[in-house]
Amino acid sequence: MSTELRDGEHLDDLQNGYHIIQGEKNFRYGIDAVLLSGFAKVKKGENALDLGTGTGIIPILLAAKTEGRSFTGLEIQHSSAEMAARSIAVNHLEDRISIVEGDIKEAASLFGPASFDVVVSNPPYMIGQHGIANPDQSLAIARHEVLCSFREIVEQTAKILTSRGRFYLIHRPFRLAEIMDVLREYRLEPKRMQLVYPYVDREPNLVLLEACKNGRPRLAVDKPLIVYDKPGSYTKDIREIYGDGR
Amino acid sequence: MSTELRDGEHLDDLQNGYHIIQGEKNFRYGIDAVLLSGFAKVKKGENALDLGTGTGIIPILLAAKTEGRSFTGLEIQHSSAEMAARSIAVNHLEDRISIVEGDIKEAASLFGPASFDVVVSNPPYMIGQHGIANPDQSLAIARHEVLCSFREIVEQTAKILTSRGRFYLIHRPFRLAEIMDVLREYRLEPKRMQLVYPYVDREPNLVLLEACKNGRPRLAVDKPLIVYDKPGSYTKDIREIYGDGR
Repeated sequence: MSTELRDGEHLDDLQNGYHIIQGEKNFRYGIDAVLLSGFAKVKKGENALDLGTGTGIIPILLAAKTEGRSFTGLEIQHSSAEMAARSIAVNHLEDRISIVEGDIKEAASLFGPASFDVVVSNPPYMIGQHGIANPDQSLAIARHEVLCSFREIVEQTAKILTSRGRFYLIHRPFRLAEIMDVLREYRLEPKRMQLVYPYVDREPNLVLLEACKNGRPRLAVDKPLIVYDKPGSYTKDIREIYGDGR
Repeated sequence: MSTELRDGEHLDDLQNGYHIIQGEKNFRYGIDAVLLSGFAKVKKGENALDLGTGTGIIPILLAAKTEGRSFTGLEIQHSSAEMAARSIAVNHLEDRISIVEGDIKEAASLFGPASFDVVVSNPPYMIGQHGIANPDQSLAIARHEVLCSFREIVEQTAKILTSRGRFYLIHRPFRLAEIMDVLREYRLEPKRMQLVYPYVDREPNLVLLEACKNGRPRLAVDKPLIVYDKPGSYTKDIREIYGDGR
């Protein structure tokens, strides 16, 4: 596959030996993807699926930091999937990472039941078209539940995962009660949670969750993950997650 | 009612104009009750019920800090209920606070449906007799679900509350997924949550929740409540909740 950059694309250094192709405005990864990759555990020999992979950032970061055997990124938008595939090629990661163009709602029939040890997802946070959906369709799909609801993601995840398989996700705290409820409905028991607070004295704006297929009820809640010491200055915890000493 | 102290009892100053009778070892309130009283809102003219009131600490603290019209403490253990009633008398709060001896499982039939604007509860945290139940029966009842399960508390609360009435509770984070699930099952929608971390870099050991009867799904998560700056030294937030400048 050609790894040439297109107009408006940049090749950014991930500071971990790998690079990623990103757009200037759209198709850029955020801190959410980095936090989720830091929170997720993929053990030696396991295979993992990223539902809605976008730029492919999560499979690349997981390939860099874990001994997982293989990673698959599912992406419905052709332009994203194509760009992600070029990032995999740039990094010579074709043996460990595959990008598949397709719909999350059909993931179980695409990959088959009980086909992954781990599923990760950084899904759209906003309910339906709630709020002002971004006029740019590709961003709207990434941020709003335009093509796929949270329930549909969980429904597919529950089918795809092996028994005792793990689902890692990042979402907004305002939906936490619904999230836990839907996860349990599909026998994905919440087992670990971490709230992400922008500052130590501020409300959290993100929540990280690990759920286990057919797991027993008992939730471990991690220490607070605080992003900034002061404006523009990441905390030690965040700098460690980025892993680049910034 | 006689307000005389019995053997082994102390009259402790709450530093807010009120006092409370406590035992030396048993029948003592903890920080949990103070945090819950700080978290709960009782508006002018509202009435509130405390399920499992113990020493009566929560009604006394709520009477001190809110303009609620009346407060009721329900307690199944005779010795606790009797001691709590004497604390109410010591403080001349008989016009605003009543202590009722009875079983939480019968609360709805005792008080009638839709009879309270607010319900608060600092319930037993441990599931059934899980772990080593305290050999002292009165402590076991306070800490383990010996007489009453979480589901039974929620079931009664849902009946007792007016529509849009609020339920405030404190519990252990490890049960959070189950708690949210059961609350929603009884149409008590989680609306506000705060995690209590002993230190800024430690796992939370308590969670405060507000649920609204027939409320719409949307959870606000508060800033982290951190208890200690360093061993033995409460943070400013905790000192403000205690309200005594300690």
